[in-house]
Amino acid sequence: MPKEFPVPAPETTPHPSGNAPRPIALLTDYGSTGGHVGALKAVILAVNPAATIFDITHDVSPQAVEEGAFVLSQVAPYLPDGAVCVAVVDPGVGTDRKAIALRTNRGDFVGPDNGLLSAALPDSDRPRSTGGLSNVRLPRNCEAVELANPDYFRHPVSATFHGRDIFAPVAGHLSLGTPLNAFGPSLDSVQSFPPWRASRQGDGSILGRIVLIDRFGNLVTNICVEDLSSNRVRAAIADKVIEGLQRTYQDGPDLVVYAGSSGFLEIGRRNGSAAAALGAMMGDAVRVAPLD
Amino acid sequence: MPKEFPVPAPETTPHPSGNAPRPIALLTDYGSTGGHVGALKAVILAVNPAATIFDITHDVSPQAVEEGAFVLSQVAPYLPDGAVCVAVVDPGVGTDRKAIALRTNRGDFVGPDNGLLSAALPDSDRPRSTGGLSNVRLPRNCEAVELANPDYFRHPVSATFHGRDIFAPVAGHLSLGTPLNAFGPSLDSVQSFPPWRASRQGDGSILGRIVLIDRFGNLVTNICVEDLSSNRVRAAIADKVIEGLQRTYQDGPDLVVYAGSSGFLEIGRRNGSAAAALGAMMGDAVRVAPLD
Amino acid sequence: MPKEFPVPAPETTPHPSGNAPRPIALLTDYGSTGGHVGALKAVILAVNPAATIFDITHDVSPQAVEEGAFVLSQVAPYLPDGAVCVAVVDPGVGTDRKAIALRTNRGDFVGPDNGLLSAALPDSDRPRSTGGLSNVRLPRNCEAVELANPDYFRHPVSATFHGRDIFAPVAGHLSLGTPLNAFGPSLDSVQSFPPWRASRQGDGSILGRIVLIDRFGNLVTNICVEDLSSNRVRAAIADKVIEGLQRTYQDGPDLVVYAGSSGFLEIGRRNGSAAAALGAMMGDAVRVAPLD
Repeated sequence: MPKEFPVPAPETTPHPSGNAPRPIALLTDYGSTGGHVGALKAVILAVNPAATIFDITHDVSPQAVEEGAFVLSQVAPYLPDGAVCVAVVDPGVGTDRKAIALRTNRGDFVGPDNGLLSAALPDSDRPRSTGGLSNVRLPRNCEAVELANPDYFRHPVSATFHGRDIFAPVAGHLSLGTPLNAFGPSLDSVQSFPPWRASRQGDGSILGRIVLIDRFGNLVTNICVEDLSSNRVRAAIADKVIEGLQRTYQDGPDLVVYAGSSGFLEIGRRNGSAAAALGAMMGDAVRVAPLD
Repeated sequence: MPKEFPVPAPETTPHPSGNAPRPIALLTDYGSTGGHVGALKAVILAVNPAATIFDITHDVSPQAVEEGAFVLSQVAPYLPDGAVCVAVVDPGVGTDRKAIALRTNRGDFVGPDNGLLSAALPDSDRPRSTGGLSNVRLPRNCEAVELANPDYFRHPVSATFHGRDIFAPVAGHLSLGTPLNAFGPSLDSVQSFPPWRASRQGDGSILGRIVLIDRFGNLVTNICVEDLSSNRVRAAIADKVIEGLQRTYQDGPDLVVYAGSSGFLEIGRRNGSAAAALGAMMGDAVRVAPLD
Repeated sequence: MPKEFPVPAPETTPHPSGNAPRPIALLTDYGSTGGHVGALKAVILAVNPAATIFDITHDVSPQAVEEGAFVLSQVAPYLPDGAVCVAVVDPGVGTDRKAIALRTNRGDFVGPDNGLLSAALPDSDRPRSTGGLSNVRLPRNCEAVELANPDYFRHPVSATFHGRDIFAPVAGHLSLGTPLNAFGPSLDSVQSFPPWRASRQGDGSILGRIVLIDRFGNLVTNICVEDLSSNRVRAAIADKVIEGLQRTYQDGPDLVVYAGSSGFLEIGRRNGSAAAALGAMMGDAVRVAPLD
């Protein structure tokens, strides 16, 4: 529901990417059925007919905000300069959770202020606490605004589809070069998840968990490979123990532990699904310890 | 199979969108496996390498023409100016059902004449009868042609994949500005479904049905929110009764009835799936009555 | 892992498509969850912000190289002039299988040298042997290079995600007009599957197999329709016999055998799934014999 607020004077400094095209990336939990994704794209193109739109994924598990944030964190470092990313996993749509745009050196991120966009923040600026969401002060090189200027919304604004009515048109306008502060008042903090980095235990092991299961049944953990002191490790999941750190899927007899492409330890299976072989689920504990 | 017919002289009036880019939207039941969707896009780009193509969905239930029409009706009002929409749910492909292009103020719609494209017509011009498909006269501000000019087809034309061989190349040519009447003879009627608007019963209640189940398990009905006289309603589905009309998913204890983002009443569940909770299926009856 | 090698002098002859846009098609087994597909597109756009990217499919069965090749063979003839196709079904990623770019008159194909890209070669240049993969000499009008020049990779290059780190940036550079031999040394052979063309048996029948099951449950075989001497045929699958060759899905009482849109015989079901009706699976045998 649009709130009235005075439209500020436009910024004098344009986006650093200047007049280069600003591709728009989409990440949602809308799935592939129905018209949600189509409406999002249609509204963006109605605002900016020359926009280049690309899908990250629309298959985040329904309402799984942290899972969506993790996927976003895997793609954000690769976004092209000047990218605008619409990210919507938003079970609180229509409540008093804020709608925001967050500008970082990885691009502009548009979506609900429920932690999803914190994936775009550097780890060092995210909360230390293990546990859930908390409010963090924005680092110096980031900016954020609350999306409060109804001039940039599509009307009428529904209570349950802010993707179509708020986030999509705002992203379209950002891609056209509208300055950030035109959309609403500045924020100095946003909701953030802690970094995905499992911590070392007293006994020298690292206790992590499965944060994503990909299409191959590979189990992505939150154990940073650079936190391991050597390749001579033993990974334990459920009642299974797997020894050694391999380089490729083909380097193990069956189950393989390897450094995933985003720097996290993963458990995979040669030409098969580790998730199926292990009956593993999101959130399951994984412990890694030195082999000796 | 291309029919011969005399190519008419081109229109003198070009498409009202002039030389602006004409994005091409796709809606099919092809699914995401195999090469069907890729072939569709490849053929469009072979005709117009500068085309902007975007997917509405390819996951309409197989052969479910009315479901596809409903999804199209939800997105059509948001299409950018001058959009061309290729819509294909076409169990009668290769039979004597017509291939058509329909021009409305929402864009140009290309596909089979089996009711799918009637989603682009205003409700007021669609048949009154409850029940299935019927032939309706086109309203004054709409035009349609039969796709009969083989010059705009890709050859050889297969009997089972008109998406690739007829609809995709025609859409490519439309996006390049080819006038509508170049594609074939004018039609003054098309096949149409009745509007999705459940009617009031003698007792003052409205008896509708589930016309779409989205990825979240939200049940979209054909009951228009504007047909309700107040928020004090009771919705009955199977043996379950839900009271009140909420604004967001978070406003109910569990199951919530709310005004969906397209103006239809929906039944959802706070952070969950109403379809799973209720065992609901497409077509199931939903009755809404005043609470008093 | 990038290997060092001397960068050759650039070609003097540019790509025949000149300065026309070169759309980039994607075919993978990455699925729709997680960030794999998003990372691929982000990296391409980081290299070439003006690239037109389109998806063929990301739902090839996991690690099913030959299935991916078959899907690619169905779409390759329809690719727009100058297309670049990134194809990745790559269970051997990070091992000593080569990364290659293959230039044919259907476009440029970038991916692993595991037979996947052989779908872009003419049937006449693929191995005669029934059976698996073999090394074939490139025909005169094709060129291939090993992707060995790390200047065109994204660094660091992971061992398990060459799509993002090697194939995507190379495709981006190809779409910008970088000459083929800039990427690495020429190859005179590539890994290839035999053509999908079932052979005639001593008794005059043709014994084929199911090479793809589409979303509708249609069973695509490797039996070429042009190898049939007439429409008076009998197809046998499991213990079921179906007589006659139909033109459309509506021409049979229930199960229909028809000429598929890529020239192969298919078995479908009127408004339903032949796969479900027959319990059929990929690889199942299908035999076609004259009716008399």
